[in-house]
Amino acid sequence: MNFTYEELKKSSLAVVRDAIRAGQYQSNTAGLGRGYLQANLAIMPAENALDFMRYCQRNPKPCPLTGVSDTGNRMMFTMGRDIDIRTDVPAYNIFRDGRLDRSVTDIKDIWRDDLVVFALGCSFTFENALQSAGVAVWHIDNNTTVPMFQSNIDTVPSGPFSGKMVVSMRAIPEERLDEVIAISRRFPLAHGAPVYWGDPNGIGITDISSPDWGDAAPVEKGQVPVFWACGVTPQVAIANAKLPICITHKPGQMLITDVAEDAENPVLTFDRS
Amino acid sequence: MNFTYEELKKSSLAVVRDAIRAGQYQSNTAGLGRGYLQANLAIMPAENALDFMRYCQRNPKPCPLTGVSDTGNRMMFTMGRDIDIRTDVPAYNIFRDGRLDRSVTDIKDIWRDDLVVFALGCSFTFENALQSAGVAVWHIDNNTTVPMFQSNIDTVPSGPFSGKMVVSMRAIPEERLDEVIAISRRFPLAHGAPVYWGDPNGIGITDISSPDWGDAAPVEKGQVPVFWACGVTPQVAIANAKLPICITHKPGQMLITDVAEDAENPVLTFDRS
Repeated sequence: MNFTYEELKKSSLAVVRDAIRAGQYQSNTAGLGRGYLQANLAIMPAENALDFMRYCQRNPKPCPLTGVSDTGNRMMFTMGRDIDIRTDVPAYNIFRDGRLDRSVTDIKDIWRDDLVVFALGCSFTFENALQSAGVAVWHIDNNTTVPMFQSNIDTVPSGPFSGKMVVSMRAIPEERLDEVIAISRRFPLAHGAPVYWGDPNGIGITDISSPDWGDAAPVEKGQVPVFWACGVTPQVAIANAKLPICITHKPGQMLITDVAEDAENPVLTFDRS
Repeated sequence: MNFTYEELKKSSLAVVRDAIRAGQYQSNTAGLGRGYLQANLAIMPAENALDFMRYCQRNPKPCPLTGVSDTGNRMMFTMGRDIDIRTDVPAYNIFRDGRLDRSVTDIKDIWRDDLVVFALGCSFTFENALQSAGVAVWHIDNNTTVPMFQSNIDTVPSGPFSGKMVVSMRAIPEERLDEVIAISRRFPLAHGAPVYWGDPNGIGITDISSPDWGDAAPVEKGQVPVFWACGVTPQVAIANAKLPICITHKPGQMLITDVAEDAENPVLTFDRS
Protein backbone atom coordinates (compact mmCIF):
# COMPACT_ATOMS: atom_id res chain seq x y z
CA MET A 1 0.00 0.00 0.00
CA ASN A 2 1.26 3.43 -0.87
CA PHE A 3 0.14 6.79 0.51
CA THR A 4 -0.59 9.90 -1.55
CA TYR A 5 0.59 13.38 -0.58
CA GLU A 6 -2.98 14.47 0.08
CA GLU A 7 -3.54 11.55 2.47
CA LEU A 8 -0.39 12.22 4.47
CA LYS A 9 -1.01 15.96 4.55
CA LYS A 10 -4.00 15.25 6.81
CA SER A 11 -2.13 12.66 8.91
CA SER A 12 -0.29 12.89 12.20
CA LEU A 13 3.51 12.91 12.34
CA ALA A 14 3.47 9.28 13.58
CA VAL A 15 1.48 8.10 10.55
CA VAL A 16 3.73 10.05 8.19
CA ARG A 17 6.89 8.59 9.72
CA ASP A 18 5.52 5.03 9.66
CA ALA A 19 4.59 5.39 6.00
CA ILE A 20 8.03 6.69 5.10
CA ARG A 21 9.78 4.00 7.18
CA ALA A 22 7.72 1.28 5.50
CA GLY A 23 8.73 2.60 2.08
CA GLN A 24 5.12 3.57 1.34
CA TYR A 25 5.79 7.20 0.48
CA GLN A 26 8.48 8.68 -1.78
CA SER A 27 7.76 12.29 -2.53
CA ASN A 28 8.01 15.82 -1.19
CA THR A 29 7.71 16.42 2.55
CA ALA A 30 6.85 20.15 2.42
CA GLY A 31 3.58 20.61 4.31
CA LEU A 32 3.71 17.17 5.97
CA GLY A 33 3.96 16.82 9.76
CA ARG A 34 3.09 20.49 10.10
CA GLY A 35 4.62 22.29 13.05
CA TYR A 36 7.68 20.05 13.16
CA LEU A 37 11.18 20.97 12.04
CA GLN A 38 12.33 19.42 8.76
CA ALA A 39 15.99 18.93 8.00
CA ASN A 40 18.44 18.45 5.14
CA LEU A 41 20.82 15.53 5.61
CA ALA A 42 24.50 14.92 4.95
CA ILE A 43 25.97 11.58 6.03
CA MET A 44 29.73 11.04 5.77
CA PRO A 45 32.63 9.11 7.28
CA ALA A 46 33.89 10.24 10.71
CA GLU A 47 37.27 11.16 9.24
CA ASN A 48 35.62 14.08 7.39
CA ALA A 49 33.15 14.96 10.14
CA LEU A 50 35.18 17.46 12.19
CA ASP A 51 36.07 19.46 9.07
CA PHE A 52 32.44 19.46 7.90
CA MET A 53 31.16 20.44 11.33
CA ARG A 54 33.63 23.35 11.35
CA TYR A 55 32.40 24.29 7.86
CA CYS A 56 28.84 24.47 9.22
CA GLN A 57 29.92 26.51 12.27
CA ARG A 58 31.73 28.99 10.00
CA ASN A 59 28.84 29.28 7.55
CA PRO A 60 25.79 29.25 9.81
CA LYS A 61 23.42 30.88 7.33
CA PRO A 62 23.73 28.32 4.51
CA CYS A 63 24.53 25.45 6.95
CA PRO A 64 22.43 25.82 10.12
CA LEU A 65 23.33 22.70 12.06
CA THR A 66 20.35 21.21 13.91
CA GLY A 67 21.70 17.77 14.86
CA VAL A 68 24.74 15.50 14.67
CA SER A 69 24.62 11.77 15.37
CA ASP A 70 27.09 9.80 17.38
CA THR A 71 29.57 8.06 15.06
CA GLY A 72 27.92 4.86 13.80
CA ASN A 73 24.66 5.48 15.67
CA ARG A 74 21.72 5.24 13.27
CA MET A 75 19.31 6.71 15.84
CA MET A 76 19.10 10.50 15.57
CA PHE A 77 18.25 10.75 19.27
CA THR A 78 18.61 14.49 19.76
CA MET A 79 15.90 15.23 17.18
CA GLY A 80 13.41 12.41 17.71
CA ARG A 81 12.33 9.70 20.11
CA ASP A 82 12.57 7.02 17.42
CA ILE A 83 14.25 8.29 14.26
CA ASP A 84 16.20 5.61 12.38
CA ILE A 85 18.19 7.58 9.87
CA ARG A 86 18.54 4.55 7.55
CA THR A 87 14.82 4.41 6.79
CA ASP A 88 13.02 7.55 7.94
CA VAL A 89 13.64 9.76 4.92
CA PRO A 90 11.56 9.14 1.74
CA ALA A 91 14.58 8.95 -0.57
CA TYR A 92 18.37 9.34 -0.44
CA ASN A 93 21.06 10.35 -2.93
CA ILE A 94 24.37 8.48 -2.73
CA PHE A 95 27.42 10.40 -3.93
CA ARG A 96 30.79 8.78 -4.61
CA ASP A 97 33.86 10.95 -5.23
CA GLY A 98 31.56 13.98 -5.41
CA ARG A 99 29.25 12.57 -8.13
CA LEU A 100 25.71 11.22 -7.83
CA ASP A 101 25.89 7.42 -7.98
CA ARG A 102 22.25 6.48 -7.40
CA SER A 103 19.04 7.27 -5.48
CA VAL A 104 17.56 4.78 -2.99
CA THR A 105 14.63 4.62 -0.57
CA ASP A 106 16.61 3.31 2.40
CA ILE A 107 20.31 2.97 3.26
CA LYS A 108 20.16 -0.15 5.43
CA ASP A 109 22.56 -2.03 3.17
CA ILE A 110 25.19 0.70 2.99
CA TRP A 111 25.08 1.93 6.60
CA ARG A 112 28.53 1.72 8.22
CA ASP A 113 29.86 2.01 11.76
CA ASP A 114 32.05 4.98 10.84
CA LEU A 115 29.25 7.21 9.48
CA VAL A 116 28.18 10.49 11.05
CA VAL A 117 24.81 12.07 10.28
CA PHE A 118 24.43 15.84 9.99
CA ALA A 119 20.97 17.43 9.97
CA LEU A 120 20.69 21.01 8.70
CA GLY A 121 17.76 23.40 8.98
CA CYS A 122 15.79 24.40 5.88
CA SER A 123 13.74 27.36 4.67
CA PHE A 124 10.30 25.89 5.39
CA THR A 125 10.27 27.42 8.88
CA PHE A 126 10.73 31.04 7.84
CA GLU A 127 8.52 30.62 4.78
CA ASN A 128 5.69 29.49 7.06
CA ALA A 129 6.34 32.53 9.25
CA LEU A 130 6.26 34.87 6.23
CA GLN A 131 2.97 33.39 5.07
CA SER A 132 1.51 33.69 8.58
CA ALA A 133 2.44 37.39 8.48
CA GLY A 134 0.55 37.75 5.20
CA VAL A 135 3.62 37.95 2.95
CA ALA A 136 2.95 35.95 -0.22
CA VAL A 137 5.64 33.43 -1.22
CA TRP A 138 5.32 33.12 -5.01
CA HIS A 139 6.90 29.70 -5.55
CA ILE A 140 4.66 28.12 -2.90
CA ASP A 141 1.50 29.79 -4.23
CA ASN A 142 2.45 28.62 -7.73
CA ASN A 143 3.66 25.16 -6.70
CA THR A 144 7.12 25.59 -8.21
CA THR A 145 10.62 25.21 -6.72
CA VAL A 146 12.26 28.35 -5.29
CA PRO A 147 14.80 29.87 -7.74
CA MET A 148 18.40 29.30 -6.58
CA PHE A 149 21.59 30.94 -7.85
CA GLN A 150 25.29 30.50 -7.38
CA SER A 151 26.46 33.85 -5.96
CA ASN A 152 29.96 35.31 -5.89
CA ILE A 153 30.00 35.21 -2.08
CA ASP A 154 32.78 32.96 -0.80
CA THR A 155 31.99 30.66 2.08
CA VAL A 156 34.58 30.30 4.84
CA PRO A 157 36.49 27.10 4.01
CA SER A 158 37.27 24.22 6.35
CA GLY A 159 39.55 21.37 5.34
CA PRO A 160 38.37 20.06 1.94
CA PHE A 161 35.04 21.94 2.14
CA SER A 162 34.75 25.26 0.28
CA GLY A 163 32.82 27.00 -2.46
CA LYS A 164 30.58 29.91 -3.35
CA MET A 165 27.34 30.47 -1.47
CA VAL A 166 24.16 29.33 -3.18
CA VAL A 167 21.26 31.70 -2.53
CA SER A 168 17.50 31.40 -2.97
CA MET A 169 15.42 34.36 -4.17
CA ARG A 170 12.01 35.53 -3.05
CA ALA A 171 10.48 38.77 -4.41
CA ILE A 172 9.21 40.95 -1.56
CA PRO A 173 7.11 44.14 -1.73
CA GLU A 174 9.42 47.10 -1.03
CA GLU A 175 7.31 48.35 1.85
CA ARG A 176 7.53 45.02 3.66
CA LEU A 177 11.30 44.52 3.28
CA ASP A 178 12.25 45.58 6.81
CA GLU A 179 9.54 43.39 8.29
CA VAL A 180 10.60 40.37 6.22
CA ILE A 181 14.22 40.80 7.31
CA ALA A 182 13.15 41.01 10.96
CA ILE A 183 10.90 37.94 10.71
CA SER A 184 13.49 35.71 9.07
CA ARG A 185 16.23 36.87 11.42
CA ARG A 186 14.20 35.25 14.21
CA PHE A 187 14.90 31.82 12.65
CA PRO A 188 18.68 31.29 12.66
CA LEU A 189 18.12 27.54 12.14
CA ALA A 190 16.19 28.31 8.94
CA HIS A 191 18.95 30.40 7.29
CA GLY A 192 18.19 33.57 9.32
CA ALA A 193 18.03 37.04 7.78
CA PRO A 194 18.68 37.42 4.04
CA VAL A 195 22.31 37.82 3.00
CA TYR A 196 21.54 40.39 0.29
CA TRP A 197 18.75 42.30 -1.44
CA GLY A 198 18.50 44.59 -4.44
CA ASP A 199 20.43 44.55 -7.74
CA PRO A 200 21.33 40.87 -8.37
CA ASN A 201 24.60 41.95 -10.06
CA GLY A 202 25.83 42.98 -6.61
CA ILE A 203 26.36 39.31 -5.76
CA GLY A 204 27.33 38.19 -9.25
CA ILE A 205 23.91 37.14 -10.57
CA THR A 206 23.65 38.38 -14.15
CA ASP A 207 20.25 36.98 -15.15
CA ILE A 208 17.56 36.75 -12.48
CA SER A 209 15.22 34.98 -14.91
CA SER A 210 17.60 32.05 -15.30
CA PRO A 211 18.23 30.31 -11.95
CA ASP A 212 21.00 27.70 -11.56
CA TRP A 213 18.62 25.41 -9.67
CA GLY A 214 14.82 25.44 -9.27
CA ASP A 215 12.31 27.43 -11.32
CA ALA A 216 12.30 31.07 -12.38
CA ALA A 217 10.02 33.40 -10.40
CA PRO A 218 8.96 36.94 -11.35
CA VAL A 219 10.09 40.15 -9.64
CA GLU A 220 7.20 42.58 -10.19
CA LYS A 221 7.33 46.39 -10.14
CA GLY A 222 7.43 47.53 -6.50
CA GLN A 223 9.10 44.31 -5.41
CA VAL A 224 12.72 43.77 -4.33
CA PRO A 225 14.57 40.53 -5.05
CA VAL A 226 15.69 39.25 -1.65
CA PHE A 227 18.34 36.55 -1.36
CA TRP A 228 18.70 34.05 1.47
CA ALA A 229 21.56 31.61 2.05
CA CYS A 230 20.48 28.24 0.68
CA GLY A 231 20.93 24.64 1.79
CA VAL A 232 22.34 23.69 -1.60
CA THR A 233 25.57 25.46 -0.48
CA PRO A 234 26.81 22.53 1.66
CA GLN A 235 25.94 20.12 -1.14
CA VAL A 236 28.22 22.09 -3.47
CA ALA A 237 30.93 22.16 -0.79
CA ILE A 238 30.58 18.39 -0.34
CA ALA A 239 30.82 17.85 -4.10
CA ASN A 240 33.94 20.09 -4.18
CA ALA A 241 35.46 17.94 -1.40
CA LYS A 242 35.04 14.79 -3.55
CA LEU A 243 34.37 12.54 -0.53
CA PRO A 244 34.65 8.81 -1.33
CA ILE A 245 31.10 8.47 -0.01
CA CYS A 246 28.44 10.91 1.10
CA ILE A 247 24.70 10.36 1.44
CA THR A 248 22.13 13.15 1.34
CA HIS A 249 18.34 13.32 1.30
CA LYS A 250 16.83 13.57 -2.19
CA PRO A 251 16.00 17.29 -2.65
CA GLY A 252 12.54 18.12 -1.31
CA GLN A 253 12.29 14.79 0.52
CA MET A 254 13.54 15.74 3.94
CA LEU A 255 13.83 14.30 7.42
CA ILE A 256 10.77 15.25 9.50
CA THR A 257 11.84 15.49 13.15
CA ASP A 258 10.03 15.52 16.52
CA VAL A 259 11.40 19.00 17.24
CA ALA A 260 8.83 21.81 17.24
CA GLU A 261 9.37 24.20 14.35
CA ASP A 262 9.54 27.19 16.71
CA ALA A 263 11.75 25.53 19.38
CA GLU A 264 14.45 27.79 20.80
CA ASN A 265 16.92 24.94 20.26
CA PRO A 266 16.64 21.84 18.06
CA VAL A 267 17.55 19.44 20.86
CA LEU A 268 14.70 17.36 22.24
CA THR A 269 15.81 16.60 25.75
CA PHE A 270 17.10 20.02 26.43
CA ASP A 271 14.50 22.55 27.46
CA ARG A 272 12.69 22.26 30.75
CA SER A 273 11.18 25.72 30.56
CA MET B 1 55.15 48.48 32.01
CA ASN B 2 51.82 47.13 33.18
CA PHE B 3 48.35 48.51 32.57
CA THR B 4 45.63 48.93 35.18
CA TYR B 5 42.02 47.98 34.61
CA GLU B 6 40.98 51.63 34.72
CA GLU B 7 43.50 52.54 32.01
CA LEU B 8 42.40 49.76 29.67
CA LYS B 9 38.71 50.44 30.29
CA LYS B 10 39.18 53.75 28.46
CA SER B 11 41.32 52.21 25.70
CA SER B 12 40.50 50.92 22.23
CA LEU B 13 40.30 47.21 21.49
CA ALA B 14 43.68 47.40 19.69
CA VAL B 15 45.41 48.84 22.76
CA VAL B 16 43.75 46.26 25.03
CA ARG B 17 44.83 43.37 22.80
CA ASP B 18 48.40 44.67 22.51
CA ALA B 19 48.65 45.00 26.28
CA ILE B 20 47.36 41.45 26.81
CA ARG B 21 49.62 40.05 24.09
CA ALA B 22 52.66 41.76 25.60
CA GLY B 23 51.87 40.22 28.99
CA GLN B 24 51.18 43.67 30.44
CA TYR B 25 47.70 42.92 31.76
CA GLN B 26 46.48 39.92 33.77
CA SER B 27 43.07 40.55 35.20
CA ASN B 28 39.35 40.59 34.41
CA THR B 29 38.20 41.51 30.93
CA ALA B 30 34.58 42.42 31.79
CA GLY B 31 33.96 45.96 30.55
CA LEU B 32 37.10 46.04 28.35
CA GLY B 33 36.82 46.41 24.56
CA ARG B 34 33.17 47.37 24.97
CA GLY B 35 30.88 46.36 22.14
CA TYR B 36 32.95 43.33 21.18
CA LEU B 37 32.07 39.70 21.86
CA GLN B 38 34.06 38.02 24.62
CA ALA B 39 34.51 34.26 24.69
CA ASN B 40 35.33 31.38 27.00
CA LEU B 41 38.06 29.05 25.70
CA ALA B 42 38.61 25.30 25.65
CA ILE B 43 41.68 23.98 23.82
CA MET B 44 42.09 20.23 23.39
CA PRO B 45 43.65 17.58 21.11
CA ALA B 46 41.93 16.92 17.77
CA GLU B 47 41.13 13.36 18.80
CA ASN B 48 38.61 14.73 21.35
CA ALA B 49 37.39 17.64 19.20
CA LEU B 50 34.52 16.00 17.30
CA ASP B 51 33.00 14.64 20.52
CA PHE B 52 33.34 18.01 22.23
CA MET B 53 31.88 19.86 19.25
CA ARG B 54 28.91 17.46 19.32
CA TYR B 55 28.58 18.11 23.07
CA CYS B 56 28.34 21.85 22.34
CA GLN B 57 25.80 21.32 19.53
CA ARG B 58 23.64 19.20 21.86
CA ASN B 59 23.86 21.64 24.75
CA PRO B 60 23.66 25.02 23.02
CA LYS B 61 22.54 26.98 26.08
CA PRO B 62 25.49 26.18 28.36
CA CYS B 63 27.90 25.76 25.41
CA PRO B 64 27.12 28.35 22.72
CA LEU B 65 29.85 27.75 20.16
CA THR B 66 31.16 30.96 18.60
CA GLY B 67 34.35 29.75 16.92
CA VAL B 68 36.49 26.68 16.23
CA SER B 69 40.06 26.86 14.97
CA ASP B 70 41.58 24.71 12.29
CA THR B 71 43.57 21.88 13.86
CA GLY B 72 46.99 23.23 14.84
CA ASN B 73 46.22 26.79 13.65
CA ARG B 74 46.95 29.28 16.42
CA MET B 75 45.20 32.11 14.54
CA MET B 76 41.51 32.32 15.44
CA PHE B 77 40.72 33.76 12.02
CA THR B 78 36.92 33.54 12.08
CA MET B 79 36.73 35.81 15.16
CA GLY B 80 39.52 38.31 14.58
CA ARG B 81 41.87 39.72 12.00
CA ASP B 82 44.93 39.02 14.14
CA ILE B 83 44.10 36.86 17.16
CA ASP B 84 46.96 34.59 18.24
CA ILE B 85 45.31 32.23 20.68
CA ARG B 86 48.65 31.46 22.40
CA THR B 87 49.07 35.01 23.70
CA ASP B 88 45.87 37.02 23.38
CA VAL B 89 44.14 35.94 26.60
CA PRO B 90 45.34 37.46 29.89
CA ALA B 91 45.77 34.09 31.64
CA TYR B 92 45.20 30.39 30.97
CA ASN B 93 44.49 27.33 33.13
CA ILE B 94 46.17 24.08 32.10
CA PHE B 95 44.34 20.90 33.09
CA ARG B 96 45.92 17.44 32.94
CA ASP B 97 43.74 14.34 33.40
CA GLY B 98 40.89 16.62 34.45
CA ARG B 99 42.81 18.43 37.22
CA LEU B 100 44.22 21.96 37.28
CA ASP B 101 47.98 21.70 36.78
CA ARG B 102 48.96 25.38 36.64
CA SER B 103 48.01 28.86 35.42
CA VAL B 104 50.13 30.69 32.85
CA THR B 105 50.02 33.98 30.94
CA ASP B 106 50.77 32.50 27.53
CA ILE B 107 50.83 28.99 26.03
CA LYS B 108 53.58 29.46 23.44
CA ASP B 109 55.70 26.69 24.95
CA ILE B 110 52.92 24.09 25.14
CA TRP B 111 51.15 24.81 21.84
CA ARG B 112 50.96 21.67 19.67
CA ASP B 113 50.04 20.96 16.05
CA ASP B 114 47.16 18.69 17.08
CA LEU B 115 45.31 21.24 19.21
CA VAL B 116 41.85 22.61 18.37
CA VAL B 117 40.56 25.83 19.94
CA PHE B 118 36.91 26.21 20.89
CA ALA B 119 35.49 29.65 21.72
CA LEU B 120 32.17 29.77 23.59
CA GLY B 121 29.87 32.74 24.18
CA CYS B 122 29.47 34.19 27.67
CA SER B 123 26.84 36.06 29.65
CA PHE B 124 28.32 39.54 29.25
CA THR B 125 26.28 40.18 26.11
CA PHE B 126 22.85 39.61 27.63
CA GLU B 127 23.84 41.27 30.90
CA ASN B 128 24.72 44.42 28.94
CA ALA B 129 21.35 44.19 27.21
CA LEU B 130 19.52 43.81 30.54
CA GLN B 131 21.30 46.84 31.96
CA SER B 132 20.52 48.86 28.82
CA ALA B 133 16.85 47.99 29.37
CA GLY B 134 17.09 49.32 32.93
CA VAL B 135 17.13 45.93 34.65
CA ALA B 136 19.63 46.04 37.52
CA VAL B 137 22.15 43.17 37.67
CA TRP B 138 23.06 42.86 41.35
CA HIS B 139 26.44 41.16 41.05
CA ILE B 140 27.68 43.78 38.58
CA ASP B 141 26.39 46.69 40.65
CA ASN B 142 28.05 45.18 43.72
CA ASN B 143 31.25 44.10 41.98
CA THR B 144 30.93 40.43 42.96
CA THR B 145 30.89 37.23 40.89
CA VAL B 146 27.51 35.91 39.76
CA PRO B 147 26.28 33.01 41.98
CA MET B 148 26.52 29.65 40.18
CA PHE B 149 24.97 26.31 41.17
CA GLN B 150 25.17 22.72 40.04
CA SER B 151 21.59 21.86 39.02
CA ASN B 152 20.00 18.43 38.64
CA ILE B 153 19.48 19.02 34.89
CA ASP B 154 21.40 16.45 32.86
CA THR B 155 23.25 17.68 29.81
CA VAL B 156 23.05 15.57 26.65
CA PRO B 157 26.26 13.50 26.62
CA SER B 158 28.71 13.07 23.74
CA GLY B 159 31.58 10.61 23.90
CA PRO B 160 33.45 11.20 27.18
CA PHE B 161 31.70 14.53 27.82
CA SER B 162 28.75 14.57 30.23
CA GLY B 163 27.54 16.05 33.50
CA LYS B 164 24.91 18.17 35.19
CA MET B 165 24.19 21.66 33.95
CA VAL B 166 25.70 24.51 35.95
CA VAL B 167 23.37 27.53 36.17
CA SER B 168 23.91 31.16 37.14
CA MET B 169 21.28 33.06 39.14
CA ARG B 170 20.08 36.62 38.77
CA ALA B 171 17.18 37.97 40.86
CA ILE B 172 14.63 39.72 38.64
CA PRO B 173 11.59 41.81 39.66
CA GLU B 174 8.48 39.68 39.08
CA GLU B 175 6.88 42.27 36.83
CA ARG B 176 9.88 42.30 34.49
CA LEU B 177 10.27 38.51 34.18
CA ASP B 178 8.63 38.16 30.74
CA GLU B 179 10.66 41.05 29.37
CA VAL B 180 13.92 39.62 30.74
CA ILE B 181 13.16 36.23 29.17
CA ALA B 182 12.43 37.89 25.82
CA ILE B 183 15.59 40.02 25.93
CA SER B 184 17.93 37.16 26.77
CA ARG B 185 16.29 34.84 24.22
CA ARG B 186 17.54 37.29 21.58
CA PHE B 187 21.14 36.29 22.43
CA PRO B 188 21.50 32.56 21.72
CA LEU B 189 25.29 32.97 21.70
CA ALA B 190 25.13 34.36 25.24
CA HIS B 191 23.21 31.39 26.76
CA GLY B 192 19.80 32.52 25.41
CA ALA B 193 16.62 32.48 27.50
CA PRO B 194 16.81 31.24 31.10
CA VAL B 195 16.42 27.48 31.61
CA TYR B 196 14.35 27.84 34.80
CA TRP B 197 12.85 30.34 37.24
CA GLY B 198 11.09 30.14 40.59
CA ASP B 199 11.57 27.68 43.47
CA PRO B 200 15.26 26.64 43.34
CA ASN B 201 14.33 23.16 44.63
CA GLY B 202 12.72 22.52 41.25
CA ILE B 203 16.18 22.08 39.74
CA GLY B 204 17.80 20.54 42.80
CA ILE B 205 19.18 23.69 44.45
CA THR B 206 18.55 23.38 48.19
CA ASP B 207 20.24 26.53 49.48
CA ILE B 208 20.13 29.62 47.27
CA SER B 209 22.38 31.50 49.71
CA SER B 210 25.22 29.04 49.23
CA PRO B 211 26.37 28.94 45.59
CA ASP B 212 28.77 26.24 44.37
CA TRP B 213 30.83 28.86 42.50
CA GLY B 214 30.90 32.67 42.75
CA ASP B 215 29.38 34.85 45.47
CA ALA B 216 25.95 34.74 47.10
CA ALA B 217 23.44 37.34 45.91
CA PRO B 218 20.13 38.31 47.57
CA VAL B 219 16.66 37.52 46.25
CA GLU B 220 14.47 40.30 47.63
CA LYS B 221 10.71 40.28 48.18
CA GLY B 222 9.00 40.77 44.82
CA GLN B 223 11.93 39.24 42.95
CA VAL B 224 12.12 35.83 41.25
CA PRO B 225 15.36 33.85 41.12
CA VAL B 226 16.04 33.29 37.42
CA PHE B 227 18.56 30.65 36.27
CA TRP B 228 20.54 30.73 33.05
CA ALA B 229 22.74 27.98 31.64
CA CYS B 230 26.33 28.75 32.60
CA GLY B 231 29.68 28.44 30.85
CA VAL B 232 31.08 26.48 33.78
CA THR B 233 29.03 23.52 32.47
CA PRO B 234 31.53 22.60 29.70
CA GLN B 235 34.40 22.96 32.19
CA VAL B 236 32.71 20.36 34.42
CA ALA B 237 32.11 18.11 31.37
CA ILE B 238 35.78 18.47 30.40
CA ALA B 239 36.89 17.62 33.92
CA ASN B 240 34.58 14.56 33.87
CA ALA B 241 36.19 13.49 30.58
CA LYS B 242 39.66 13.51 32.21
CA LEU B 243 41.41 14.63 29.02
CA PRO B 244 45.20 14.17 29.13
CA ILE B 245 45.48 17.89 28.37
CA CYS B 246 43.01 20.73 28.10
CA ILE B 247 43.65 24.46 28.29
CA THR B 248 41.00 27.02 29.26
CA HIS B 249 41.00 30.76 29.93
CA LYS B 250 41.37 31.68 33.59
CA PRO B 251 37.82 32.49 34.79
CA GLY B 252 36.92 36.12 34.18
CA GLN B 253 39.93 36.63 31.89
CA MET B 254 38.41 35.96 28.51
CA LEU B 255 39.27 36.24 24.86
CA ILE B 256 38.12 39.61 23.46
CA THR B 257 37.28 39.15 19.78
CA ASP B 258 36.79 41.50 16.79
CA VAL B 259 33.18 40.31 16.43
CA ALA B 260 30.52 42.89 17.29
CA GLU B 261 28.58 41.92 20.41
CA ASP B 262 25.26 42.18 18.55
CA ALA B 263 26.38 40.42 15.34
CA GLU B 264 23.82 38.01 13.90
CA ASN B 265 26.61 35.45 13.55
CA PRO B 266 30.02 35.32 15.25
CA VAL B 267 31.92 34.83 11.99
CA LEU B 268 33.88 37.83 10.74
CA THR B 269 34.01 37.28 7.02
CA PHE B 270 30.45 36.21 6.71
CA ASP B 271 27.92 39.00 6.53
CA ARG B 272 27.77 41.31 3.53
CA SER B 273 24.44 42.83 4.54
